[in-house]
Amino acid sequence: MAITVVGSVAFDSIETPAGKRERCLGGAATYFSLAASYFTDVRVIAVVGEDFGRRQEAVFEARHIDTRGIERATGKSFFWEGSYLDNLNEAKTHATDLNVFATFAPKIPEAYRDSEFLFLANIDPVLQRRVREAMPQARLVAGDTMNYWIKDHRPALLEVLKGLDILLINDTETRMLAGNNNLVQAARAVLAMGPRTLVVKHGEYGATAFLRGATGDDVKLFRAPALPLEEVVDPTGAGDSFAGGFFGYLASQQEITPVSFRHAMFYGSVMGSFAVERFGTERTQNLSRKEIDDRFNLFRELTHLD
Amino acid sequence: MAITVVGSVAFDSIETPAGKRERCLGGAATYFSLAASYFTDVRVIAVVGEDFGRRQEAVFEARHIDTRGIERATGKSFFWEGSYLDNLNEAKTHATDLNVFATFAPKIPEAYRDSEFLFLANIDPVLQRRVREAMPQARLVAGDTMNYWIKDHRPALLEVLKGLDILLINDTETRMLAGNNNLVQAARAVLAMGPRTLVVKHGEYGATAFLRGATGDDVKLFRAPALPLEEVVDPTGAGDSFAGGFFGYLASQQEITPVSFRHAMFYGSVMGSFAVERFGTERTQNLSRKEIDDRFNLFRELTHLD
Repeated sequence: MAITVVGSVAFDSIETPAGKRERCLGGAATYFSLAASYFTDVRVIAVVGEDFGRRQEAVFEARHIDTRGIERATGKSFFWEGSYLDNLNEAKTHATDLNVFATFAPKIPEAYRDSEFLFLANIDPVLQRRVREAMPQARLVAGDTMNYWIKDHRPALLEVLKGLDILLINDTETRMLAGNNNLVQAARAVLAMGPRTLVVKHGEYGATAFLRGATGDDVKLFRAPALPLEEVVDPTGAGDSFAGGFFGYLASQQEITPVSFRHAMFYGSVMGSFAVERFGTERTQNLSRKEIDDRFNLFRELTHLD
Repeated sequence: MAITVVGSVAFDSIETPAGKRERCLGGAATYFSLAASYFTDVRVIAVVGEDFGRRQEAVFEARHIDTRGIERATGKSFFWEGSYLDNLNEAKTHATDLNVFATFAPKIPEAYRDSEFLFLANIDPVLQRRVREAMPQARLVAGDTMNYWIKDHRPALLEVLKGLDILLINDTETRMLAGNNNLVQAARAVLAMGPRTLVVKHGEYGATAFLRGATGDDVKLFRAPALPLEEVVDPTGAGDSFAGGFFGYLASQQEITPVSFRHAMFYGSVMGSFAVERFGTERTQNLSRKEIDDRFNLFRELTHLD
């Protein structure tokens, strides 16, 4: 089943202990769609500026990602500059230039309208909601958000959460959204805001899914590990790549069962683990399905009890 | 097979967001031996002062722990005071009074000398080494340490590591000991210092075992989850309880196989998860084997892929 994703396509300048890259292709929708493209058809809704050229376009094309929903606007693309010199788990932001993103009004190509899966990457919740409402046929809707929207745009974000099946955020965002430092209590509070499923991403420690049961009180958990990595070159995009692997795998399944959901969590961890091995999208844009499945099996071995 | 453990038996005053307790029974050897006592016979080597009375003694007796190696000295027992008000993952130490521990010279009762399993809890590496050398019959030796010994007593600690089969420490200690921020590289460096196996405890995220293979270069990994808990009352002793569950289960097995090792990691996580549910040793001293196995099965369910 095809996924439509709305979010940022951007340029990132990144510094990590492993080195520096200027203006590499980035953005949540980019990482998400590259990761998901190994599992299913992906269609992107975004806006870019005049600096988005053939080279960037080719990265999407090579992975057969539908870019008809990427609008070309006058001006520059969204630009982010950050570093991870002291702590690979947390970026220090040096610059965020919204540029053409400041006036982004998502337009949905007619050809996208039969997408049964919709991913609302981390953007203004007002836009997330607009896209969700414009795609009523989507039968599974997942999304992401960040501290900025949680703190300063709460009412709009709460409206989005009501319409989400699956929310994917990290530990800090979960605690902040719920106003509760205990992760399990916070997860319950978030589930009460709308999503049936909350996937909390723990960075290098994997991710935990909290699944609301039929009665509401009954919450089931599943924990997927992350692979401890010998070399983390650049953590940028790991969370979006997790989301892409997770949602891409789900969309590729005939039916979502407890087992396919668990496998999706593992594929999310797998795609996150590839993303950090090179700068920007370098690793994620050049994988084979065999490499992905080999790592899936490594993860299985890493956690298999008996 | 019986385990002998050497380490601290102490009084702790603890403040957490859940409340406050004055002078409850604590110490690494206490947590370790209570957790291990559900799996095998445990013998303790420690020193206490005149403040260690019948009530404390009874906690060990109720779990059939051999306390003949707990020396009674003139003065007060080791005392620690700490709080976890801002961060449940890291204690803020307000006082550490070594008291009778300052001149501790471990004496090993004759009856302990046939222990095939030896655990060197977090104490001065000079003492760890002395106990190890006095118990040459021990065929599996595991140990713990902390930042203080890593920073200021490195040569003595390195001598201990040479004689260890299994080292159990946390993420920060692993990175500090190796002088390398990448956990996998740090783990390799620690394995080169002596232990065949390194178990890195991740607190609320579980633990990862790094197992050195026959060739030295070949390192195998296994990751055990922690249970996300609704209520963390007091994190004190979680790591020592992990070690007790882990080593206690190993000692209860006829043979250490990859499967029994993996189960031991899970039992470690199980005992750590109980420890934090009440203040001090309250929860760990009052468990049934059924409660332990029920939680083991919950952990299995939490991580089982297929």
